[in-house]
Amino acid sequence: MDYSPELGGIIYQVASMARRAGGISFAGGYPDPALFDTEGLAAAFNQVFRDSFRVALQYGEREGHPPLRARLAAFSSTPSRTVAAEEVIIANGGQQGIETAVRVLTRRGDTVFMDSPVFPTALQAFHLAGLNGISVAKDRDGLIPESLEALLKVHAPKLIYVVPSYSNPDGSVLALERRRRLLELAVHYRFHVLEDDPYSRLWFDTPAPPSLLALSGEVPGARDWLIHVSSLSKLVAPGLRVGWMIPPAHLRQEFVWTKLATDIHSALPTQHAVENYWAAGRMEAHLPKIRATYAGRARAMHAALAEHLADRLDFAAPQGGMFMWCRVRAGGDARDLMDAARREGVYFVPGVAFYPRDADRATFRLSFATTPEDGIAEGIRRLSRVLAG
Amino acid sequence: MDYSPELGGIIYQVASMARRAGGISFAGGYPDPALFDTEGLAAAFNQVFRDSFRVALQYGEREGHPPLRARLAAFSSTPSRTVAAEEVIIANGGQQGIETAVRVLTRRGDTVFMDSPVFPTALQAFHLAGLNGISVAKDRDGLIPESLEALLKVHAPKLIYVVPSYSNPDGSVLALERRRRLLELAVHYRFHVLEDDPYSRLWFDTPAPPSLLALSGEVPGARDWLIHVSSLSKLVAPGLRVGWMIPPAHLRQEFVWTKLATDIHSALPTQHAVENYWAAGRMEAHLPKIRATYAGRARAMHAALAEHLADRLDFAAPQGGMFMWCRVRAGGDARDLMDAARREGVYFVPGVAFYPRDADRATFRLSFATTPEDGIAEGIRRLSRVLAG
Repeated sequence: MDYSPELGGIIYQVASMARRAGGISFAGGYPDPALFDTEGLAAAFNQVFRDSFRVALQYGEREGHPPLRARLAAFSSTPSRTVAAEEVIIANGGQQGIETAVRVLTRRGDTVFMDSPVFPTALQAFHLAGLNGISVAKDRDGLIPESLEALLKVHAPKLIYVVPSYSNPDGSVLALERRRRLLELAVHYRFHVLEDDPYSRLWFDTPAPPSLLALSGEVPGARDWLIHVSSLSKLVAPGLRVGWMIPPAHLRQEFVWTKLATDIHSALPTQHAVENYWAAGRMEAHLPKIRATYAGRARAMHAALAEHLADRLDFAAPQGGMFMWCRVRAGGDARDLMDAARREGVYFVPGVAFYPRDADRATFRLSFATTPEDGIAEGIRRLSRVLAG
Repeated sequence: MDYSPELGGIIYQVASMARRAGGISFAGGYPDPALFDTEGLAAAFNQVFRDSFRVALQYGEREGHPPLRARLAAFSSTPSRTVAAEEVIIANGGQQGIETAVRVLTRRGDTVFMDSPVFPTALQAFHLAGLNGISVAKDRDGLIPESLEALLKVHAPKLIYVVPSYSNPDGSVLALERRRRLLELAVHYRFHVLEDDPYSRLWFDTPAPPSLLALSGEVPGARDWLIHVSSLSKLVAPGLRVGWMIPPAHLRQEFVWTKLATDIHSALPTQHAVENYWAAGRMEAHLPKIRATYAGRARAMHAALAEHLADRLDFAAPQGGMFMWCRVRAGGDARDLMDAARREGVYFVPGVAFYPRDADRATFRLSFATTPEDGIAEGIRRLSRVLAG
């Protein structure tokens, strides 16, 4: 891989710089902290202190707090694929699900496929595990099955990593037929699919297509090849570090042992609080507010880009999630643009941080999640001046 | 290694069985939940809700909450080895420190030394990493430097794992001169020492000898070869999953990248609460109560064993921590004794779970941490009947 941790560190540096300088930041992968339901969460923690504090302070089950496992199982279930509580293992956010899958399924030197551009902290996990990362081409409808199949004639990956819905960084949505095809190819070529699904509930106008987990109930043999990973970082709050993993049955014991060896289990007061929060109906009540806020900001960003930069950039209207992906038509390296924009007090992450190799350097990522609509309009106006200059 | 996860699972099974059946349990490695300072911790969390909740719910620094890092640095500092806040990386309990060291320093097939009997969840981490585990003999004064040196003539370990103070499972304390010698050997033979130090503050009559971290300031070159790992699981509460790691300077960046790839960072509301708890003086106020309670139970267990089983078992008076280690003089397999004791409503863990290979099967571990003194006396009486029968 061309990837290096220093390259991945760009995101962190740009986001920190933006926080310090107080400009308009489209840089972070952070949810808007103004949208955290602090009142609901404080009440949920206080219920822990009253009802279950000594249990939550003690060692617990490696797989996580049983009522939360049951709730996440119900949350992940669909008519075609019912998930049992026993299938769910609670993790420290989705990242630990990615990392655990890497450790269970791969050895140093193995090949991992990923649709690119790709989430850079996943790249970091693949890099540290010594894996050979191969990009699968994608378009607005997600990874292209024909490209995948061509690569499968040459390589034998252990794993393919995909974020099918509102991907970070590019906001793409894997089309329904492509989802089915991916699962069929996994069964046929015998590789595991690691579905990372933190954004699918952040849809704007219409819900995302069914997850690969849901579809795995319809594609014969696919359940054995699918690891589903998700997280509450974007739906409740990332600081809680609550995510979960649903491995296939034949890998479950090894996932649990790996979780045990990694950190015994995830922090429990947070798990108890999340379960209380959900049981009190706050999750369902609050999620539409997050969705509506991000949808409004996405529309504002798309409208500003369409007004000021339609002739210089390629981009598409976001359907959900937190990100827009842009490409400078004239080419060049978006790192130069980043430096120029920074002098105007606008921050974003250049595309080079999101590829295992052969980065398209003319690309960059804009997050619309944390900036109010008027700030977005002003930020895009400044960006258009930089690009015109 | 002869070790298997199934074997390690014995501990979990026996402890669960004891909880369900409601007998007298000497089985768990758990602190006594009656000693959790729930009032102090609830107040500390409530301060988070008032003062820093949105920050604690957001993504934070990979290395952990800065004020808590500074506090843990001060806690870990001694006159001969001052620790800076920048050296401390917060982890999900000590286990994640062990796991991170394994990932940074070893590759599949590498050799790891450990003084045995040894903490079995560390064994689990070595096993999953595909390491070749070699036991170094120990006695009541911890690992025997001559045995270590003899093994170093034959093997080239990447790492030696030690719990120098009040080790789990055997309660041994590595003698001061042996600590210095271990560090000298590490420098000379060029291997890393992984010091796991969760129990040293749980001393009974006199404090434990200086940690390897403290001594590394006195042994030329030793700082570069020492990874110190510790945890608040036994001092505050394990469910919080707050531990920390102090790698040498040249490994720090790789530890941080590995932590990032594993789970981005540890849960933050718990870190903020622990910092508030400590700042309010509750840590210093509460720790002596834990120490006094465990000391009383240790004396009760030792007295009961001396009264009823001095002729059948070898054991020594605990100086701190949570465990006593016993050996049946007549030999045999302590798993048979475990089964017989279970029928009398007494639970403990057989020694076979604590060795990478060549287990001394006549050994077993007794925890005195969770059973009040009268229950300890009754449990040892029952055990003596089982051993007599």
